[in-house]
Amino acid sequence: MVQTKPKDPEKSGRLFGLGVGPGDPELITVKALRRLRESEVIAYYAGPRKRGNALTSIESWLREDQQRLPLIYPVTGRPPPPPFDYEGTMRAFYDASAERVAEHLRAGRDVAALCEGDPLFYGSFMYLHDRLADRFETEVVPGVCSVVASASVLQTPLVYRDQTLLVLAGTLPEADLERMLANAQAAAIMKLGSNFEKVRRVIMALGLGDRALYVERATMTNEQIRPLAEVDPTQVPYFSMILVPGERWQAA
Amino acid sequence: MVQTKPKDPEKSGRLFGLGVGPGDPELITVKALRRLRESEVIAYYAGPRKRGNALTSIESWLREDQQRLPLIYPVTGRPPPPPFDYEGTMRAFYDASAERVAEHLRAGRDVAALCEGDPLFYGSFMYLHDRLADRFETEVVPGVCSVVASASVLQTPLVYRDQTLLVLAGTLPEADLERMLANAQAAAIMKLGSNFEKVRRVIMALGLGDRALYVERATMTNEQIRPLAEVDPTQVPYFSMILVPGERWQAA
Ligand SMILES: C[S@@+](CC[C@H](N)C(=O)[O-])C[C@H]1O[C@@H](n2cnc3c(N)ncnc32)[C@H](O)[C@@H]1O
Ligand SMILES: C[S@@+](CC[C@H](N)C(=O)[O-])C[C@H]1O[C@@H](n2cnc3c(N)ncnc32)[C@H](O)[C@@H]1O
Repeated sequence: MVQTKPKDPEKSGRLFGLGVGPGDPELITVKALRRLRESEVIAYYAGPRKRGNALTSIESWLREDQQRLPLIYPVTGRPPPPPFDYEGTMRAFYDASAERVAEHLRAGRDVAALCEGDPLFYGSFMYLHDRLADRFETEVVPGVCSVVASASVLQTPLVYRDQTLLVLAGTLPEADLERMLANAQAAAIMKLGSNFEKVRRVIMALGLGDRALYVERATMTNEQIRPLAEVDPTQVPYFSMILVPGERWQAA
Repeated sequence: MVQTKPKDPEKSGRLFGLGVGPGDPELITVKALRRLRESEVIAYYAGPRKRGNALTSIESWLREDQQRLPLIYPVTGRPPPPPFDYEGTMRAFYDASAERVAEHLRAGRDVAALCEGDPLFYGSFMYLHDRLADRFETEVVPGVCSVVASASVLQTPLVYRDQTLLVLAGTLPEADLERMLANAQAAAIMKLGSNFEKVRRVIMALGLGDRALYVERATMTNEQIRPLAEVDPTQVPYFSMILVPGERWQAA
C-alpha cells in the first residue's frame, strides 16, 4: 500500500485499487471502505448487460453523489476462435479503460477502481495498475481473496505448516493440470465454468475425489456448496472454485 | 462462513475464527470487526514474553471489558533438537489451548480467536478449528492473507490470467525449494527468518534474483522493503516474505 509518486500532485486525483472481497459486503476491509467513501468516481469492470460482481458486493456502501464509471468487457467467457483477435481486442479495451480512468485523475478526481477479492491476485485491476501506477498517485488496498473465502465457507483448513499450496486456473490444458496436481500437497483451482468437466476428470484420475471440495459464489447471497460428484458441468458459473486442502496435521 | 451445528445451542457460546489481516488495524474486514466487538473473550496466540501480532494489530478496536485469553507458545522459532519432543509438545499445547477456549464456550461466552492474515491459510486457528468446530457453533471470517498484502506494499501484480502461483515455506529443504521454484510461474515464499540465506541461494541459482521482491512486516508500522541482495540474513524476522511475481502479461 506504499503510494507511488504522483507526476503532478497538485492537480491529479488519486487512484485507489480496492479489493472488495469475495462477495459479502461485510468482507470489505475498513480501509477499503474508507477509501471507497472518499472517492468521487467509482470504476468497475462488468460484462455486457451485467452489473459486475464487484459493484454488486459494495453497492450498499455507495452514496448517490458518487459517479459510476462502468468498464464494459467487449468479450466474456470463452474467447471466440481466430480470426477474432482476442488478445488485441482485450489490449485495446484495457488501454481505453485506463484512458477513461486517467481523464478523471487528470481532472483532479479520486477514482476507486473496484476489484473482486484482491486487486493484484488475478485481478482485472492489474491492467489499470500496469498502465497508470507510474503516472498517478496509486494506492492498492489488499482484499480477502476468493481462495481463503472459499476455505471459510467450506469450513476447511487449507494448508498446514510447511505444506505447499498451488493455485491454478482450470483453463489450463488437461495434461498440465494432471502433472501439476499430481505433485501438489494442497491446491485451489479457479476459473472453472466450462472447464469444470475437464478439471473433475483430472481430480478423479488422480484419486483426489475424496479430498476435493466445490463451492460456487462463496459468501455471495446465492452461494452453493455441492459434492463434486453431483455438480452439473453445464451449470458451473465462472465464480466457482475447487479446493484440495492439505492433509490434516497429525498432531490434531 | 457457514456455521457448524452447535451441540447445545442454548448453553454454549460461539467460536469465531477471525482473520485480522496482515498488521494494519484497518485491514480487518467489517465483518471480523463486528464479530470482534460482539465477543466477550478474545483469545490469541503469542510467543513467551510477547504480545502477539494478531492482538497488536487489533488492540485499538477492543474495549476494556473484553476478557483477554493469551495462549502462550511453549516454543517459538527453530524447534530444539531431539530428545526434545517438539511434535508432542505442540500437540499438548494445542490440546490445552482448545480446552481453555472450550471452557468459555461451555460457560456460554462467545470467544473470538484472532489470527494474523487469514485463519485457514497456515493459521494457528486451524488447530482450534480441528478440535472445536464439531463441538461448538463455529464461524470463520476470512481475512486478508500476507501474500496479497505483501504484493500490495511491493506494488506488484502477483499473478496474471492462467499463470500458476506456488506458495511455499522457507523451512523446506534446499533441494525441494530448488525443484519447486524451478517450475513455478509465480511464487510466494513464507516463513523466512533463519531460512532466508538458503532461500536466497536457491533464488540466485535459478536466475530469479531480478524478479524476486522482499518485504518484512508488510503493512505493520515497522514495515521494511529491501532489495534482496541487501538483506542481512541474520536480521530477517519471521514475519517476512519473498514474492516472485508472474511475468507481466504482453497486452500491458
Ligand atoms: C479473475 S479471477 C479474480 C480473483 C480475485 N481477484 C480474487 O482475489 O479472488 C476470477 C476467479 O476467482 C474465483 N472467484 C472469485 N470470487 C469467487 C467466489 N465468491 N466464490 C468462488 N470463486 C470465486 C473464481 O474461480 C473465478 O473464476
Ligand atoms: C504461520 S504463517 C501465517 C500466515 C497467515 N495466516 C496469513 O494468512 O498470512 C506466518 C508467515 O506468514 C507470513 N506473514 C504474515 N504476516 C506477514 C506480514 N505482515 N508481512 C510479511 N509476511 C507475513 C510470514 O512469511 C510468516 O512466516
